[in-house]
Amino acid sequence: MGDRADRLVAAIAEHELDCALITNILDVRYLTGFGGTNGACVCGDGLRLFLTDFRYTERAADEVRGWEIITLSDDWFAGLASHLKGRAGYEDDRLSVRTFEKLGGAVGDRVTLVPAGGMVERLRRVKDEDELAAIRAAAAMADEIYLWTIERGMLGRTESDVARALVAEIRDRGAEPSFDPIVAAGPNGALPHAEPGERVIGSGELIVFDMGVELGGYCSDCTRTFATGEPGELARQVYEIVLDAQEASLAAITEGADGRAVDAIAREMIKEAGYGERFGHGLGHGVGMEVHEAPRLSSRSEDTLIAGEVVTDEPGIYLPGELGVRIEDLVVVTRDRPEILTGLSKQITFVD
Amino acid sequence: MGDRADRLVAAIAEHELDCALITNILDVRYLTGFGGTNGACVCGDGLRLFLTDFRYTERAADEVRGWEIITLSDDWFAGLASHLKGRAGYEDDRLSVRTFEKLGGAVGDRVTLVPAGGMVERLRRVKDEDELAAIRAAAAMADEIYLWTIERGMLGRTESDVARALVAEIRDRGAEPSFDPIVAAGPNGALPHAEPGERVIGSGELIVFDMGVELGGYCSDCTRTFATGEPGELARQVYEIVLDAQEASLAAITEGADGRAVDAIAREMIKEAGYGERFGHGLGHGVGMEVHEAPRLSSRSEDTLIAGEVVTDEPGIYLPGELGVRIEDLVVVTRDRPEILTGLSKQITFVD
Repeated sequence: MGDRADRLVAAIAEHELDCALITNILDVRYLTGFGGTNGACVCGDGLRLFLTDFRYTERAADEVRGWEIITLSDDWFAGLASHLKGRAGYEDDRLSVRTFEKLGGAVGDRVTLVPAGGMVERLRRVKDEDELAAIRAAAAMADEIYLWTIERGMLGRTESDVARALVAEIRDRGAEPSFDPIVAAGPNGALPHAEPGERVIGSGELIVFDMGVELGGYCSDCTRTFATGEPGELARQVYEIVLDAQEASLAAITEGADGRAVDAIAREMIKEAGYGERFGHGLGHGVGMEVHEAPRLSSRSEDTLIAGEVVTDEPGIYLPGELGVRIEDLVVVTRDRPEILTGLSKQITFVD
Repeated sequence: MGDRADRLVAAIAEHELDCALITNILDVRYLTGFGGTNGACVCGDGLRLFLTDFRYTERAADEVRGWEIITLSDDWFAGLASHLKGRAGYEDDRLSVRTFEKLGGAVGDRVTLVPAGGMVERLRRVKDEDELAAIRAAAAMADEIYLWTIERGMLGRTESDVARALVAEIRDRGAEPSFDPIVAAGPNGALPHAEPGERVIGSGELIVFDMGVELGGYCSDCTRTFATGEPGELARQVYEIVLDAQEASLAAITEGADGRAVDAIAREMIKEAGYGERFGHGLGHGVGMEVHEAPRLSSRSEDTLIAGEVVTDEPGIYLPGELGVRIEDLVVVTRDRPEILTGLSKQITFVD
């Protein structure tokens, strides 16, 4: 974990800063191992300060290694400010305007606050072996949960019943859902962010099923589209188009590829099949401590992929009032073909 | 719910604003009833706009009443900006510096953005009858869960096992924990924000047990300190001091009382008993859609209590390496004595 602070110091130097104040609690956890809810880091060349309040002093002593632990009392901002110097980067993408004003008041003219959000999120993009192991475990559990769900059947149950049972099973296995699962059958499958509802799943329907597990602080994410019996010609055609787009874009995920170019492969295929207007979201996103993090695979992405990143590949086609299809794998970027963490078949799977 | 928008319009006039942009999603839900995750309100005299993206258009049509629904596509900030005018309040306590910069770029010179955070949170302080009913139901369920937990026993189990079972029971009853429960036995009780750990709960220990339920979008919060058999003279003394401080401060909770003055009653009593240094947090906080919201009861509070507010009263004493005691009730502020929503005994309760 000391390596993480070293990489941050390099980023601080690149940004021509004298130090950085890290306040986003997940970033703080990433750097220090601290699992509580109030803490901040001040980092720079030879500078490794972890700041918290009295409630977490003992916990920090247990969890935080390689950082000097400082307990601030009374005025939090004055305390933070007293440890900053020179050009100090801060997380402008996280700090509220009001908090920034308080911090600015506390540092006065002595320190120049420089917007530098995303520095730690960029470090978090490339996962180390421990992180990859955690994500593999989360993905493997999600696979098992999928098989368990298929085994139990979906036909004749409500979407919300299927989702509730699934969440309970995840928790029974000692994990948490990494987001509220989507179980969207028939026409509901056309709503990309449908909440599972009281509609009973009928036969011959497609079910868009999007679910992930958070285990040991790391997330997984996977979507499959199931069929409760023969869904008909249109559904099968759409399914094949999405699957082809998913496979083709997946093959392009490799170190050095542009997030925009990978997205374009799937988008172009779907467009050529006549459904360009029906794929209204990005192709994929990074997954790690958060289920949505950098990098992005989308038409607006400016990211270039690096080995060790973990991303989703999830094209979809949504036909309002009719059906939806989305197929999503979770993969590790390598110098060659991606390592696919999702172990489920992508052929259309019939469920009872 | 239309009443809420009217009250916001009055607050907007008080702040000498022409309109307000509300982006905090809980505030948006409070105003409109929208339960999704991306939406914003633009509110002013005769102006009731609810803005969302295509994913939520259908859902908004189902849920949002009394607001014109506008679906923004493509550039979110340009879309928001186009509906603002004159002096436009924004939530400076919620908007990140970066988001504020984007919004500022989008409005240009046409609109003056004025920091106005907390306007809706202030409206949310005073609960209406529906909200009080929801909080009463959440508190009643928490009471039942406490009794269920006492029934099952704690002695010889790990803290985390007790906490896990409790959370599963909350979910079985169709609710969610309003925060990660605290089950902190023996010396762990001295860590005010301990996470339940693998330590087995022994006999003759105090257990600080802090738990709440979220039901129907509203939270409850309650702490009791149990004993697994005779905890000894020191524990009993500390318990009595905390209980006396809790009862005395509780009696002072009434419309017109200052949050600071109520806190001081408990703090002074604990100080006089020789434990002034061992009560390191505020006395209480508002509870509603969030488990921590305005108003505050603390030595820094600037709030004056109003009938219809719901607050906690939770003094504690924490002796590092030895034990902790905290006793917390949830109450409704009235013009007279508070309505106490927590139905559990505050006498020291022995558990197996």
